[in-house]
Amino acid sequence: MTERATTLGVAVIGTGRMGADHVRRIHEVTSGARVTAVVDVDAERAKAVAARVDGCTAYTDPAAAMAAADVDAVLIASPGPAHEATLLAAFEHDLPVLCEKPLTPDAASALRVLEAELRLGHRRVQVGFMRRYDPEYAKLKALLATGQLGRPLMVHNRHRNVASPPFFTSTMLVTDSVAHEADATRWLLDHEITAVTVLRPTPSANAPDGLRDPQFVVFETDGGALSDVEIFVNCGFGYQVQAEVVCERGTARIGDGHALVTNMAGRWGGTISQDFTERFETAYDHEIQAWVDATRRGEVTGPGIWDGYAAAAVCEAGVRALEDGGRVEVELAEKPALYA
Amino acid sequence: MTERATTLGVAVIGTGRMGADHVRRIHEVTSGARVTAVVDVDAERAKAVAARVDGCTAYTDPAAAMAAADVDAVLIASPGPAHEATLLAAFEHDLPVLCEKPLTPDAASALRVLEAELRLGHRRVQVGFMRRYDPEYAKLKALLATGQLGRPLMVHNRHRNVASPPFFTSTMLVTDSVAHEADATRWLLDHEITAVTVLRPTPSANAPDGLRDPQFVVFETDGGALSDVEIFVNCGFGYQVQAEVVCERGTARIGDGHALVTNMAGRWGGTISQDFTERFETAYDHEIQAWVDATRRGEVTGPGIWDGYAAAAVCEAGVRALEDGGRVEVELAEKPALYA
Amino acid sequence: MTERATTLGVAVIGTGRMGADHVRRIHEVTSGARVTAVVDVDAERAKAVAARVDGCTAYTDPAAAMAAADVDAVLIASPGPAHEATLLAAFEHDLPVLCEKPLTPDAASALRVLEAELRLGHRRVQVGFMRRYDPEYAKLKALLATGQLGRPLMVHNRHRNVASPPFFTSTMLVTDSVAHEADATRWLLDHEITAVTVLRPTPSANAPDGLRDPQFVVFETDGGALSDVEIFVNCGFGYQVQAEVVCERGTARIGDGHALVTNMAGRWGGTISQDFTERFETAYDHEIQAWVDATRRGEVTGPGIWDGYAAAAVCEAGVRALEDGGRVEVELAEKPALYA
Amino acid sequence: MTERATTLGVAVIGTGRMGADHVRRIHEVTSGARVTAVVDVDAERAKAVAARVDGCTAYTDPAAAMAAADVDAVLIASPGPAHEATLLAAFEHDLPVLCEKPLTPDAASALRVLEAELRLGHRRVQVGFMRRYDPEYAKLKALLATGQLGRPLMVHNRHRNVASPPFFTSTMLVTDSVAHEADATRWLLDHEITAVTVLRPTPSANAPDGLRDPQFVVFETDGGALSDVEIFVNCGFGYQVQAEVVCERGTARIGDGHALVTNMAGRWGGTISQDFTERFETAYDHEIQAWVDATRRGEVTGPGIWDGYAAAAVCEAGVRALEDGGRVEVELAEKPALYA
Repeated sequence: MTERATTLGVAVIGTGRMGADHVRRIHEVTSGARVTAVVDVDAERAKAVAARVDGCTAYTDPAAAMAAADVDAVLIASPGPAHEATLLAAFEHDLPVLCEKPLTPDAASALRVLEAELRLGHRRVQVGFMRRYDPEYAKLKALLATGQLGRPLMVHNRHRNVASPPFFTSTMLVTDSVAHEADATRWLLDHEITAVTVLRPTPSANAPDGLRDPQFVVFETDGGALSDVEIFVNCGFGYQVQAEVVCERGTARIGDGHALVTNMAGRWGGTISQDFTERFETAYDHEIQAWVDATRRGEVTGPGIWDGYAAAAVCEAGVRALEDGGRVEVELAEKPALYA
Repeated sequence: MTERATTLGVAVIGTGRMGADHVRRIHEVTSGARVTAVVDVDAERAKAVAARVDGCTAYTDPAAAMAAADVDAVLIASPGPAHEATLLAAFEHDLPVLCEKPLTPDAASALRVLEAELRLGHRRVQVGFMRRYDPEYAKLKALLATGQLGRPLMVHNRHRNVASPPFFTSTMLVTDSVAHEADATRWLLDHEITAVTVLRPTPSANAPDGLRDPQFVVFETDGGALSDVEIFVNCGFGYQVQAEVVCERGTARIGDGHALVTNMAGRWGGTISQDFTERFETAYDHEIQAWVDATRRGEVTGPGIWDGYAAAAVCEAGVRALEDGGRVEVELAEKPALYA
Repeated sequence: MTERATTLGVAVIGTGRMGADHVRRIHEVTSGARVTAVVDVDAERAKAVAARVDGCTAYTDPAAAMAAADVDAVLIASPGPAHEATLLAAFEHDLPVLCEKPLTPDAASALRVLEAELRLGHRRVQVGFMRRYDPEYAKLKALLATGQLGRPLMVHNRHRNVASPPFFTSTMLVTDSVAHEADATRWLLDHEITAVTVLRPTPSANAPDGLRDPQFVVFETDGGALSDVEIFVNCGFGYQVQAEVVCERGTARIGDGHALVTNMAGRWGGTISQDFTERFETAYDHEIQAWVDATRRGEVTGPGIWDGYAAAAVCEAGVRALEDGGRVEVELAEKPALYA
Repeated sequence: MTERATTLGVAVIGTGRMGADHVRRIHEVTSGARVTAVVDVDAERAKAVAARVDGCTAYTDPAAAMAAADVDAVLIASPGPAHEATLLAAFEHDLPVLCEKPLTPDAASALRVLEAELRLGHRRVQVGFMRRYDPEYAKLKALLATGQLGRPLMVHNRHRNVASPPFFTSTMLVTDSVAHEADATRWLLDHEITAVTVLRPTPSANAPDGLRDPQFVVFETDGGALSDVEIFVNCGFGYQVQAEVVCERGTARIGDGHALVTNMAGRWGGTISQDFTERFETAYDHEIQAWVDATRRGEVTGPGIWDGYAAAAVCEAGVRALEDGGRVEVELAEKPALYA
């Protein structure tokens, strides 16, 4: 504990829903960090958010914030298309970065960012795959690591939302939603994904016109495993994320969430979260705390640019598979030693 | 209750494990029936089984048993390749039949039997898909029938055995095991299956050499639904059959089996059946009882020859899909009005 | 199986709800028995029930039925106050009896019946404590018998009904409802109950005026264990019977009933039975079948007169404890060797 | 968020297991506070703990720490007998206090502290009943507050530890363990406890010689409810805290903890915590954070001295009930308006 003298000054880039929530989190929940800068192209919004935190300055230009003396680290929560430029600017200042997912919108841009970090010569970027910080996923990963279940053979994933927002497209079921399962599969199994199949049942009557919802996605991995994903973003009944890993000697499942059980009116059971912020609140808290702690030690310990790039490549293959209704192979660059 | 004066005299054809168990069941459990004949090519085995039941005669020829005055109905539990001839003989005597699955070993022979029943002009055959008589499956079917969950979109099935017998082949995972999920899918959804895909992860180290175990099978239906099946016959930990139907407004899952829960040595939980006879004992009892009751009323109420034929056609497509690792369409004859 | 030639002819005494259901059960479900006589003081009702079964005669006098040539055994389902006379008549004919609970309405009359069976010199009576035949209770008993949990220290019981019938009194919560837990405690632990305490929280607003519902009953046993019972007969939400046995090295719980789990409208969970006939249908079937099987072998294997007497003595103490709101000791005669 | 400029300087009194853990928590987890002083009669231990935190001074005298300019609030984690003097000293400095349970060792001393706070004229003390901050208990309380289950009638509590420490006495099962259920009952129901009964089954063979373990405690409340507690501190299998509230229209249960479910070696289920720090880690974090937040706003929002006093009075009655094996009434002073 002794080496925690300095408090980390964080610039939060983007003050939309996610960015504003991270400002609140660092201000109220995270130990050892404070928000010293917020950045948004909308100057008024930036000012309004900055006003909530003592000693926090509002900017419209990320580079200006990164040049400030009280900025030690950067949290990127702007829209995906803006990430590449912001990441490259952070590399120029050699600042540690926590970058919300997606790293960038496609595999080619993710690869450019990866090459820039390679030129920098050390890892600076953690990508916001926060499920790795969820206590249930962490227990699942820890159990697999003991080896007592044997080698993983299959993963069955369920990912359900009450209703999709108006702007949601069939493609976003893959790139926005299943992207989480792509990373979770890679992380849990320590495999890369080599092919994607997307099956398209008749859409639910509750899906907006033209939206292919639900979809059923199957990942194949270089370790010979399968990982299937039910993605259903208009299921109506709640927000639900479940995963069962089937291994040679047993299976392990998370996401049942049996904390409070009632008997009422002819039924036993419990409530289902209606929102990801409730289900994954602790995961977000732990993610930010872990990033702050590692950054203060000068380390990157969480998912990095390679993970962001791999997710982008998988999602690109997934989008093609969705369009075809078939199987598409994933193409990955060779993995650099920096990410070994 | 009044019209139950006569007791149904049943000839059981085949006295292997399944046949002998059905003899015991009818003798000890089933009300309104008695075993009056047993038939086996092995005359000694037939005599040994007949000796356990008063008034039961042993035969080696099914036709001879069917001609006996005290035989009112036939239960076929002989090996699959013998079914076709026995069924045709039963049609000659116009006897009601309960035929263990598979109806016949392939779609072509199933179609011949179907055509023979059509010539007979009325339904006489019930096929032994006993999951339809399992209380949990029955509750699931009943819930779907209420319509409160909306239209079914997907079914997720898990089918796990402790270990496969020595004679089990990769093909039998489809034809012997997944055949149950093929029928369950058709029955639960009231859809026909139109295509089969079989995915083949790297086999478990606990699978016998050369056995492709586990497999992951995906059915597509004429109602636009998907039904996926994890079949894993060397899972090591128990016999487990689970199904979750995902509908437009909710999901329903069976097979968790939480009857007795213990806290012991750092763990809470329950035991898992090691054998299908334990898990489905009640289903077998109900199946035989329902067949006896319907037969005494002169009706066929359970799964019939069309269901046996459809399962055979699906399994044939499944075997080709297993060999290819791809997707194979199912070809079905037109459905006769007799089975509407 | 060989020695099952004769079918047991059963006289059912009493054709109310319970008696009529047992007639149906023996006629439709039970193997190896048939109803040859029904008896009711209401001659019309007896005739109506007899008319549903071929070869069944209606009587108004139990003794006349017992004298009939086709009556081999007696099932008593008449009101409790009539049991003593019927049991003594059955002893005169030396007929096997299955007597619905309670054996008799009080400990003194139960003791007279017990002494009559002692004079007869062999056991003839099984008492209708059907929970001993419930598969979940049977698993719990079997687990305790293995000794792997160590010695039982406490039992926590929950017994909940949707609503009580109009004639239900505060005393009947003890004598009619908790009587089941009294027997279950004695049977699970193999202890006798030595004292009863009844605690009386403020009644639920949903209880009929003047009914002390719920109550909380604590049994002490001669093995130093406690068994507490929540009895709540107007809980509103369902019929629920749960038991957890706390032992030196672990606990075991039954009654959660997780067979079908749904996700719907913001909640996961399952339905709760609304009625004991649904929850304990299999127990009733197994009870009658076991009695028929034992009777045909000339044995009594189930709970006997000693168990019926002990339950009556416990309930009498319970009623006094309810009136006092305190603790009352149970007085039992010495246990005869016949029931060892 | 704006009014959080100043960081709260906390003096932690007592640096044993609990105190040292709170120092770590405030240093690493809690936002808006820092440890500026630690106090212990063991000067070396105080120095060792202080050395882990920048700007933290070690003291041996609580009063000296309270007089320091950088101390804004006091967390008392010293042994119970030292609490009274420390609380009175804090009142002299008018400092906010978070006092670990028990408030003081007995009802008389608790009442003296209560009177001292009354003389101070405003509330300054929060007592460390951290279950009120546990997410599961919070959900249970919130559900009761909606009124949809109706009025609470009974609470069933289970409190199990793997093994008791060597110094544990029969009395401590009441004063140290059941004290949590005393507070939880008062808080969940918003009732005061009026009588305590302690039942003593034969001790487990795994309990140390002379320790009466398990015990079964029944609280009666001024709202006519019962709350029973199984306390079993040598259960062997894990740390388990469960509560079920039975209301007029339904029940609600917490503590099943089904987060990760495995299938392995013939069993399904999950692990049981072995330690309260794992089960209640989040509760401790939330408790300290809530106290820091309220203190910075100049408020006391958590359980106060009245709650600490009431728990002491209940435990005193519980100890007498344990000795008698009977029922003892709880005597409480009149509740001052300050705690209304």
